[in-house]
Amino acid sequence: MKRFLLSLCCIMALYAVSAQQAINEKQSTLSPEIHPDNRVTFRLAAPQAQSVKVVGDMIAEPAEMVRRDDGVWEYTTPKPIASNLYNYNFILDGVKITDPGNVHTMRDVSSSFNLLLIKGGKGDLFATNAVPHGTLSHVWYPTSDKQHSARRMSIYTPAGYEQGKGRYPVLYLLHGMGGDEEAWIGLGRAVHIFDNLIAEGKMQPMIVVMPNGNMIQHAAPGESAEGFVTPTLHLPRTMDGTYESLFHEIVEYVDSNYRTRADRLHRAVAGLSMGGFHSLHIAMHYPKMFSYIGLFSAAINRGNPELSPLYRDFDKHLDALYATEPRLMWIAIGSDDFLYEENLTLRKMLDKKGYPYIYHESEGGHIWRNWRDYLVLFCPQLFK
Amino acid sequence: MKRFLLSLCCIMALYAVSAQQAINEKQSTLSPEIHPDNRVTFRLAAPQAQSVKVVGDMIAEPAEMVRRDDGVWEYTTPKPIASNLYNYNFILDGVKITDPGNVHTMRDVSSSFNLLLIKGGKGDLFATNAVPHGTLSHVWYPTSDKQHSARRMSIYTPAGYEQGKGRYPVLYLLHGMGGDEEAWIGLGRAVHIFDNLIAEGKMQPMIVVMPNGNMIQHAAPGESAEGFVTPTLHLPRTMDGTYESLFHEIVEYVDSNYRTRADRLHRAVAGLSMGGFHSLHIAMHYPKMFSYIGLFSAAINRGNPELSPLYRDFDKHLDALYATEPRLMWIAIGSDDFLYEENLTLRKMLDKKGYPYIYHESEGGHIWRNWRDYLVLFCPQLFK
Repeated sequence: MKRFLLSLCCIMALYAVSAQQAINEKQSTLSPEIHPDNRVTFRLAAPQAQSVKVVGDMIAEPAEMVRRDDGVWEYTTPKPIASNLYNYNFILDGVKITDPGNVHTMRDVSSSFNLLLIKGGKGDLFATNAVPHGTLSHVWYPTSDKQHSARRMSIYTPAGYEQGKGRYPVLYLLHGMGGDEEAWIGLGRAVHIFDNLIAEGKMQPMIVVMPNGNMIQHAAPGESAEGFVTPTLHLPRTMDGTYESLFHEIVEYVDSNYRTRADRLHRAVAGLSMGGFHSLHIAMHYPKMFSYIGLFSAAINRGNPELSPLYRDFDKHLDALYATEPRLMWIAIGSDDFLYEENLTLRKMLDKKGYPYIYHESEGGHIWRNWRDYLVLFCPQLFK
Repeated sequence: MKRFLLSLCCIMALYAVSAQQAINEKQSTLSPEIHPDNRVTFRLAAPQAQSVKVVGDMIAEPAEMVRRDDGVWEYTTPKPIASNLYNYNFILDGVKITDPGNVHTMRDVSSSFNLLLIKGGKGDLFATNAVPHGTLSHVWYPTSDKQHSARRMSIYTPAGYEQGKGRYPVLYLLHGMGGDEEAWIGLGRAVHIFDNLIAEGKMQPMIVVMPNGNMIQHAAPGESAEGFVTPTLHLPRTMDGTYESLFHEIVEYVDSNYRTRADRLHRAVAGLSMGGFHSLHIAMHYPKMFSYIGLFSAAINRGNPELSPLYRDFDKHLDALYATEPRLMWIAIGSDDFLYEENLTLRKMLDKKGYPYIYHESEGGHIWRNWRDYLVLFCPQLFK
């Protein structure tokens, strides 16, 4: 036993040495520390720093961290943080960095930040719980698009899918501008939401397809042939009608390769921001394909009619969609969202035409916290 | 068109405002910049900083960055960087941070760093190329382990698997200490390696299974019920025999749920460091299960015989394995690796017993760059 322990110590010590290469030692500064009452302490060892702040959506204002004698900067929230999923950064001498003590970083467009999960309430929806888990797959589907021969998407199959023989309804879930096929998984915690809602019996087991809506990308940065480029709010080919007009290729791939219920009563399309724009135009372009539509903080009617016929005659397309009597048109937006007005305009148009929809207004603006909440509210309404 | 452009500008501007929440503006400092001759410039906007360095495995020593008048710190490598995949960090006033200009961060145990891909040579093996792409799935398999009822693993199925009916051989690929079921995908770039080698005809199309070898985890940090804990070099239950003695549950799950060629001539097991230790003990514990074995910088014979009968009678187990005449025992290690001596001891033992193996010695130590290279060399030897 002694020799064995010696051997282990030797491994540990040598791992620490090789830390200069690729394998790294344990961080010695605990951050974040979630206290039993859900106050949170953030820490950064930075003896030479002149100023360190913490910023994030769990606090209203940037908070000054205080330097301890040992060079560790510290900030503890004065109040408990409500159970939820949050993101934060440190500002070290003016530079926005991620917390080196917390390896859970996430990317949104071109910025990285840390995640903080407070359990014991709403946050449990975004946690891994002792429930059956679905499978998440990254697959490439063939396309006739001029730029790439294949495009990457993420597909969730619910627990039991692989072992069973049954057919499932399908939700197509679209990301926003600057996002990609990984956005709903990472920032949206969609897989965790699906597992938890299905386990609670609040959501039908369904397949969820999360494609990439930027036609100039065929995959998320890092996974694409472009390599490790830093993503931007790509505009070319994101709202030129191509994605919508080729969307049937995705549906055909999914219906061919998965056990789907391949009819409109068992297909939903929903998305956030630009993905809401895409969802609406896809639903209108293929009025016989989807019966459930979700618009989360959607960019409404921003299509350039010069770029695609899809964006002409909005009224006519809307009439064609409603002629099929969709089971659900669900519109959600935050009261502070910069897209509030154009959603109001859409609602007025629907009211005037007597077209039914369900409206949910939340607090806050154009943020992921709202979109996770909308997904939690939307999914239970599908395929009833 | 004018109204449309105005509308787009409005979106862009408002995205920039909401940057204080979750969506962030484009980073304005380009870093890293790969020049046409493959010299690389690193940059960090840090007007208040006193010192900024860059460290990484593409340069021998930490390099001092130089402050420009506009507060951007800069360093350009004096020579071109050879085509490969590298990792790096900045040291900002003594604090190791990731490059905010490069969102491609990766975790190794508890440290995050940035990735840098130089194409045009060996690096192309780790890039997304215009070749058919396999599917990567994250699945949960049931287990009889006392701690969790299910455990997460990553499974690669080669291009064409989902559309075809054929059966495939299987490689079980194991991570090292502190790693998890995502290590070979992220740091190992395994999916890219498989896609590229298969497309070049250098590797048989095969299923690759990447489980989690830390029994106290059921999934990678962030994906586990433990939540967003910072990972450590976990010791409890990683080398106590449980993983090896329950490994048949993984094989049974894969054989039941995938179209495998379910015999030993079509199964391989390989791993790095602790994963090499696991691979050898798994192969010895199930001598009729695997015919191809790969030990990458393996920790040899460090099993505590008091913890599991698996770790007793090494000689006898080795004899039992070689009695089945495995098709391949492949041993690879770097000349500077701290595990070099114990691999030498194993080779001497094999030589003495007259047991065949293939040995590959590389430069360097216990680093991911070597393990990616070993994977590239190992896979083409399988299932010939």
